[in-house]
Amino acid sequence: MYPPSIQKLIEQFSKFPTVGPRTAARFVFYLIKLPKGELEKLVKSISDVREKINFCSFCFNTFESTSSEKRLCSICTNPIRNKSLLCIVERETDLLSLERIKKYKGLYFILGGTVSTLKENDVKKIRMEELVDRIKNPLNFIKNSPGFEEIILATNPTIEGEATALYIERLLKSLKAGNGPVESIKITRLARGLPTGGELEYADEETLSSALEGRK
Amino acid sequence: MYPPSIQKLIEQFSKFPTVGPRTAARFVFYLIKLPKGELEKLVKSISDVREKINFCSFCFNTFESTSSEKRLCSICTNPIRNKSLLCIVERETDLLSLERIKKYKGLYFILGGTVSTLKENDVKKIRMEELVDRIKNPLNFIKNSPGFEEIILATNPTIEGEATALYIERLLKSLKAGNGPVESIKITRLARGLPTGGELEYADEETLSSALEGRK
Amino acid sequence: MYPPSIQKLIEQFSKFPTVGPRTAARFVFYLIKLPKGELEKLVKSISDVREKINFCSFCFNTFESTSSEKRLCSICTNPIRNKSLLCIVERETDLLSLERIKKYKGLYFILGGTVSTLKENDVKKIRMEELVDRIKNPLNFIKNSPGFEEIILATNPTIEGEATALYIERLLKSLKAGNGPVESIKITRLARGLPTGGELEYADEETLSSALEGRK
Amino acid sequence: MYPPSIQKLIEQFSKFPTVGPRTAARFVFYLIKLPKGELEKLVKSISDVREKINFCSFCFNTFESTSSEKRLCSICTNPIRNKSLLCIVERETDLLSLERIKKYKGLYFILGGTVSTLKENDVKKIRMEELVDRIKNPLNFIKNSPGFEEIILATNPTIEGEATALYIERLLKSLKAGNGPVESIKITRLARGLPTGGELEYADEETLSSALEGRK
Repeated sequence: MYPPSIQKLIEQFSKFPTVGPRTAARFVFYLIKLPKGELEKLVKSISDVREKINFCSFCFNTFESTSSEKRLCSICTNPIRNKSLLCIVERETDLLSLERIKKYKGLYFILGGTVSTLKENDVKKIRMEELVDRIKNPLNFIKNSPGFEEIILATNPTIEGEATALYIERLLKSLKAGNGPVESIKITRLARGLPTGGELEYADEETLSSALEGRK
Repeated sequence: MYPPSIQKLIEQFSKFPTVGPRTAARFVFYLIKLPKGELEKLVKSISDVREKINFCSFCFNTFESTSSEKRLCSICTNPIRNKSLLCIVERETDLLSLERIKKYKGLYFILGGTVSTLKENDVKKIRMEELVDRIKNPLNFIKNSPGFEEIILATNPTIEGEATALYIERLLKSLKAGNGPVESIKITRLARGLPTGGELEYADEETLSSALEGRK
Repeated sequence: MYPPSIQKLIEQFSKFPTVGPRTAARFVFYLIKLPKGELEKLVKSISDVREKINFCSFCFNTFESTSSEKRLCSICTNPIRNKSLLCIVERETDLLSLERIKKYKGLYFILGGTVSTLKENDVKKIRMEELVDRIKNPLNFIKNSPGFEEIILATNPTIEGEATALYIERLLKSLKAGNGPVESIKITRLARGLPTGGELEYADEETLSSALEGRK
Repeated sequence: MYPPSIQKLIEQFSKFPTVGPRTAARFVFYLIKLPKGELEKLVKSISDVREKINFCSFCFNTFESTSSEKRLCSICTNPIRNKSLLCIVERETDLLSLERIKKYKGLYFILGGTVSTLKENDVKKIRMEELVDRIKNPLNFIKNSPGFEEIILATNPTIEGEATALYIERLLKSLKAGNGPVESIKITRLARGLPTGGELEYADEETLSSALEGRK
């Protein structure tokens, strides 16, 4: 019903996360009416972001660099961060949420997703090999790395996040068996319990059990 | 907190209709991970849509044309459409909604918005002058135009849409006074009443009054 | 888990419209804590409502009467109401919604529900026989009734409401065939169209078609 | 608009928790149509619940008893429950939520609400005096009570619940000062953290901080 060039762009916008065809159509008409200069700026920003953004070679966080020599993000190179502490998260946005509370002072590792099954093909979609490599050989990535003392599995407490944490936990335990530097790593999970504003009456049984057992 | 090139694109996406900063960030990370070929296709589509899309010189509907000579959209040039019937809508999406029901066989005019006040500056934002010009001089735009017999004010029954319809109605009435070809134009409004699935108990008083008065 | 007398009352409140077991439990604890005088007043009101409330012998509207002689509600006995106009509604709440807009001046008939199928058992649940009786023999119910000139089918434009209206319409048409006083009754429906605040873009096709066809 | 006896009952139902006038009206029409026997059963259940239900003289939980001698609920008299553990909750429904997970084996105390300010009048609305009495003199209520070793403040993590917990905590600390049997009582709180299905990205900062600090 729309002209082909509009239809095509609607289809492309419809692939954006959370966007359906109706919203995609509104995006297209927004762009059609945008002053030409603004549209060019948008196109430039889209191209720029792909050119300027690098992924940290340790944690896969995004960072911007003009120099091709810089390989690590500002967290991984920050001399104040505790390099014996590693927090494994699903996505960039989780890293950002944790940074926002300004309580965590260690390093991160971004998995890039979750596994819902433990099939090989599914596991390949997240950065498991990369994770193991960084835990076993931290010095290959971080100069003067002291190795890790604690690894926090900070996946979301959703079904997929829990399955992923369980998978990583098992893998790390198998790694630890008889492996000097890795053996003593403490593995922890974020606390489960009642969130701010939560109510006992509406809490699910698992959350309430965690809240009771973790009381202090 | 994000690298500057990401931050900048987030700000640009945040101006898209319905998009907030959190969704904008998800868009950016979606683009960062998109295969390079796909990203280039997206950028091309955005540029294309601006180059290929023309606005119909009568109704302001969008249409695609390679030839610079084509000035009218496929509705305005369709020989089967009733050219004595004009439906005034707020936006392209309203035109599309009406086309979808396949019941309307006349022409359209897209206002490009609504007026919330009747101040001159506000009225200038919508295509009032253009509308008056097309009603008074249809032959300047549509070859063999018979002039209009009925004008349907199909703005939304929202506060702004109603105000806009009222404004246009008054203007058309002042136009009609002593003006031969315009004098006999019938001005109509879309019927107000209960929508499909609506319930009397939850209908507002205005809707229920319209439903009662318009019974048949 | 609750004591039996609480559990029993929860079950009874759970049968109230819109009430689930959790809300029912809150009702019970509300009652347990209510000052004794207030609880007694509530119990008295519940008993009162059953004793004092009568159903109008013409329209089935509820009304309160101390005298057992009064058979008709205040609408049916109001000398100003137009007794040749009948509006058929599903429930009391629909009658009240229509009264609230102060535009309707005829009589009502409360069906007591809708039919979803046209099976005999289903039809028996609503007051079809009573309706037919009142239309054919209005003088048996309303003194000096002039008979009906117009019957408004004001069921909700939901699937059930539409099916019920269709059923009544057919029945009335079969009644009219060769039946003197009934023959000339006009049968109407509430207007369908866009409700206040509705938008063309989000209107379903049926509503939009009605709005277009019913334009005026 | 409704007859007075209906209007009155609507007003009474409108005071029920979560009930507005529209729902209250639906309740009344539900009752009007209820078979007479069912209505009488409902009225009887309402009266019964007030006559049969007692409040436990230790924890204020509701229980049903025909004998006027029974003063304690089935939790407080259960020989298997750990009588040195006390869990303070806001309401009966919180006690029930905790019982449902079958993990808690101590006693309860129902405060009957929360304090939003620490003003005397506000504090009087909840059972603070009764709480202090039971902590100081458990043997007056529970035969062979060993006194309390741990008190769990299980108010909701809402603003009011937090304020109430803080108030109780301070009060208990002042009680402990130099008071033999009370001095050694451990005071705990339910764990705060991410609930089941929660996501880091949408967690508030306080919840995320608790989840990080409470990791294990």
